[in-house]
Amino acid sequence: MTASALYKQILRKQSFLCVGLDSDQRQLPACVANEAEPLWAFNKAIVDATAACAVAYKPNTAFYEAAGSAGWQQLEKTVRYIRRQHPDVFIIADAKRGDIGNTSRRYAEAFFETLDVDAVTLSPYMGRDTVQPFLEYPGKWAALLALTSNASATDFETLPVNGGGTIYETVLQKSKEWGTVDNMMYVVGATQAAMLTAIRKIVPQHFFLVPGVGAQGGSLEEVARYGMNDQCGLLVNISRDILFGDSSDSFAVAAAAKAKEWQRKMSLLMVNLRACYQSKIH
Amino acid sequence: MTASALYKQILRKQSFLCVGLDSDQRQLPACVANEAEPLWAFNKAIVDATAACAVAYKPNTAFYEAAGSAGWQQLEKTVRYIRRQHPDVFIIADAKRGDIGNTSRRYAEAFFETLDVDAVTLSPYMGRDTVQPFLEYPGKWAALLALTSNASATDFETLPVNGGGTIYETVLQKSKEWGTVDNMMYVVGATQAAMLTAIRKIVPQHFFLVPGVGAQGGSLEEVARYGMNDQCGLLVNISRDILFGDSSDSFAVAAAAKAKEWQRKMSLLMVNLRACYQSKIH
Repeated sequence: MTASALYKQILRKQSFLCVGLDSDQRQLPACVANEAEPLWAFNKAIVDATAACAVAYKPNTAFYEAAGSAGWQQLEKTVRYIRRQHPDVFIIADAKRGDIGNTSRRYAEAFFETLDVDAVTLSPYMGRDTVQPFLEYPGKWAALLALTSNASATDFETLPVNGGGTIYETVLQKSKEWGTVDNMMYVVGATQAAMLTAIRKIVPQHFFLVPGVGAQGGSLEEVARYGMNDQCGLLVNISRDILFGDSSDSFAVAAAAKAKEWQRKMSLLMVNLRACYQSKIH
Repeated sequence: MTASALYKQILRKQSFLCVGLDSDQRQLPACVANEAEPLWAFNKAIVDATAACAVAYKPNTAFYEAAGSAGWQQLEKTVRYIRRQHPDVFIIADAKRGDIGNTSRRYAEAFFETLDVDAVTLSPYMGRDTVQPFLEYPGKWAALLALTSNASATDFETLPVNGGGTIYETVLQKSKEWGTVDNMMYVVGATQAAMLTAIRKIVPQHFFLVPGVGAQGGSLEEVARYGMNDQCGLLVNISRDILFGDSSDSFAVAAAAKAKEWQRKMSLLMVNLRACYQSKIH
């Protein structure tokens, strides 16, 4: 999918919502917990309930690997289901992979051929050759970690490097030359929204995948104010707030309502910001 | 497993060989390629052929994920087999994971409970809370990326940080406080052997997991000269040279011979270096 195709979907749905399928087996509602494939049963219900409001889904591999190969199977089923039912939706495997070149090639195959998602989150630590194989698949994306939403982001990411800037800024500066706005996006945590202005100066046109809004305390309004560009440029991920707001038999109805609530907020922010942007350029 | 139990095994086998189970489906010998579970058939033969000379096995998850859930199943079978047949052997999942705290907890569960390996390789980029959950399992280890063996290691790992040292040295300095020599080791690439002296000054007692010897061109002798400590402190990983030296029906016999060859070299290096160390302290 190109950046402009993603933007078109955002305009059509008036939403830049990414639903994080962090389907934690220990938190599933009782009505699906006893299914033979509980992660899959839960995901199917969540996808059916939220697809009208979501432009992307982001399963985090940790929650599937915790259930072993049976979990991986349910991840495969989930991706196939989204592909079949909602072929225009963008699917991101939140896997945070990263390895030397020939091994990264196998990861790219795992995610872009075998599993067939649109994007994979990657760690930049080992440098360019860990990312390059993912950029060789037309229409597929690398979502590179830049500034994350966790407290320990200050351990390394925000350290100043000799010659100016922090480690995460150096990651942005270097890596923006590796791909294009059609095959690279960046993970930028919402808990760091104030830093988005400076980040937008380095990568004005790239999409940002933004975790940390909702349960982690980041503000959607701030993310939109500081991070949105003229093609929206944002995929804001919400997981727990949509997935685990209601543990009764009506969990999917509650998830649909939550997703709709986020979509409405996003729609309003898009109107305001597009108007603001239009007034600036005319 | 404690560091001293690992050292005892190293002394007993006169070897610090870790066999990297980078079982690339495209490179398997014809005689196993058509098996229903080719990765498992290959791994079983390799483990049987090399266990006398190896103290550790390191399957890299990329090669299993490339085959989807069926690949993950064969990884599970491989780990169970090693556990049953060679209960003293150390098993490292080379997964290079790393995520925020609650997600890392699920990765720790995936690798230490569901899959049941002894160690997992982790990326330090997101900081301490990505590593912490792995340190809470008695007898299990986090193997943290420090300086890797790929060419792009110079993109970020070796950049100088304000206040002194490089990024990878900062990773070593900070992270050595997070765990102990019994639950943390470091990935240090053999292609950077000359840097091992400086690295040993920062973390004199920790085990190093050393990739890059063999096919990637690193020198075993240099790794031993600059990296060995009084408890050996090294697990040197060899993958392709042992796995794919012979693609005939006799691949396992060839792998056994190669493993024996590496073990002999290691045994010699241990004798020399132990003698040298003994003469220094007496």
